[in-house]
Amino acid sequence: MSEPVDLASIEEFLCNLAIDEVGPLIKAKSGTQHNYDLKTGNRAVDIVTAIDKQVEKIIWDRVKSKYPDFQFVGEESYVPGVTKISDAPTFIIDPIDGTTNFVHDFPFSCTSMGLTVNKEPVVGVIYNPHLDLLVSASKGNGVRVNGKPFDYKHKIDEKGPLVLKTSVVALQPGSAREGPNFTTKMKTYEELLSCDGGFVHGFRNLGSSAMTLAYLCLGYLDSYWDGGCYAWDVCAGWCILYETGGRIVGANKNEWNVTVDNRTYLAIRGCSEKKDQEKYINDFWSCVRGELKYD
Amino acid sequence: MSEPVDLASIEEFLCNLAIDEVGPLIKAKSGTQHNYDLKTGNRAVDIVTAIDKQVEKIIWDRVKSKYPDFQFVGEESYVPGVTKISDAPTFIIDPIDGTTNFVHDFPFSCTSMGLTVNKEPVVGVIYNPHLDLLVSASKGNGVRVNGKPFDYKHKIDEKGPLVLKTSVVALQPGSAREGPNFTTKMKTYEELLSCDGGFVHGFRNLGSSAMTLAYLCLGYLDSYWDGGCYAWDVCAGWCILYETGGRIVGANKNEWNVTVDNRTYLAIRGCSEKKDQEKYINDFWSCVRGELKYD
Repeated sequence: MSEPVDLASIEEFLCNLAIDEVGPLIKAKSGTQHNYDLKTGNRAVDIVTAIDKQVEKIIWDRVKSKYPDFQFVGEESYVPGVTKISDAPTFIIDPIDGTTNFVHDFPFSCTSMGLTVNKEPVVGVIYNPHLDLLVSASKGNGVRVNGKPFDYKHKIDEKGPLVLKTSVVALQPGSAREGPNFTTKMKTYEELLSCDGGFVHGFRNLGSSAMTLAYLCLGYLDSYWDGGCYAWDVCAGWCILYETGGRIVGANKNEWNVTVDNRTYLAIRGCSEKKDQEKYINDFWSCVRGELKYD
Repeated sequence: MSEPVDLASIEEFLCNLAIDEVGPLIKAKSGTQHNYDLKTGNRAVDIVTAIDKQVEKIIWDRVKSKYPDFQFVGEESYVPGVTKISDAPTFIIDPIDGTTNFVHDFPFSCTSMGLTVNKEPVVGVIYNPHLDLLVSASKGNGVRVNGKPFDYKHKIDEKGPLVLKTSVVALQPGSAREGPNFTTKMKTYEELLSCDGGFVHGFRNLGSSAMTLAYLCLGYLDSYWDGGCYAWDVCAGWCILYETGGRIVGANKNEWNVTVDNRTYLAIRGCSEKKDQEKYINDFWSCVRGELKYD
């Protein structure tokens, strides 16, 4: 790959794919899939449907045809221990993020399509066809909402200071419902909410990592803490968030530098003062009870 | 009040008020109010802004002018121990439901306007101006979404059986963040999620009781369990939910018959088999750890 990668044109390509093909299919099939598999056994509720696989196939075909030399990592074709993210340009795709939402027709399923170069997310496209909300970015080119430039600087000014105690935090327990990670999540939620702990204004749970990151980028939320996600859950949102001045670190204390496949994340919105972000991260970490660890 | 009350015309009146006046004001001011009060002291985060009061005044003025003989109960003019809901036709209004959302510009604030007759919710109008979503009903007249009839029977058939283990549940910790009610909520959330407990498909938290009830009516969610709410949080949604075959009981075991001012609620969506609702309620109650109690 000696040619420079034209990130803006890839963003446009993925936006068109999301709006023309992927989004309409997700919307049409939402709430209609009663036959689904549980991917990770009977102690978790990690749902996958035939449509997830069909959508990934469509995206893969279109992407391979247009960018035959690029790598491709998708949720449904991922092989644990085999699939690796290299330095090469790599599409990292969740065909339907929020599959439980999709099965239940809760209108927060979406497609999430990102590109990494040197393992860094440099293009991100998130499209929710139920809300007809398209949020996209490419590195150095800012953010667009439904194709129009998004003035994140104005939004950040409007939001005011980023402070744990007056923030609204996104939290998702996920599909694994036993063991130390589940316990750490439950104890941390309580600590964040308690008036003797973080005492945040509130938490929200939309059941989709990508939609949560999109809402964070738009300034609707202040932070998002999670563990158990994969690169395809966060890649697109990661690129968009960094274009709005946001930041992603690990879910556990002192994990300042993490990559897109870290499996645990604390994502925070942009704000005028960079030092407020650092304080926010430290304040948040001090509420984490235990440690989130994933293979 | 010897005249019969024309519920359909009241529904239409409240819909117009929501769309023409209240909704645009909520949308315009969302995310702009950095000065707010905490209503219940420094151990809770029960936020109110000047706009909540302004919106209630507008609704009160319009309602009093059109229906001068009706009673009025609003969140912002409520006086604990003094304001009572009588058998007379009574407007029960939350000018802005989801005030924390409103302050943070999370797009799930809405107006929630209901009417009771003989303490029974008989008109309900919920309008979210961010999503431009209007859900309304009046007793015996079915449900409308943005003014068009909503085919809830088709939706219920599409959803399939109502079963705790495969359901998506709405949960909100609320503003009070200490004491036995907070503990009961946290323990119950864990029990509902755990693979050895309810093992539900997931939970969602939108931060607005009225929007949650609206989503339940539309078949996006299966149930909603909460305590600490007031009549204005649930009155409009209650009427709409019953028009879709849904049901509301108390949050605690064996509270089968509750009124709109019960303060604790378990609301479930409509389904084809009434006996499934009863089983769902009993299964849900068996996951409640402790008892929610409010003055």
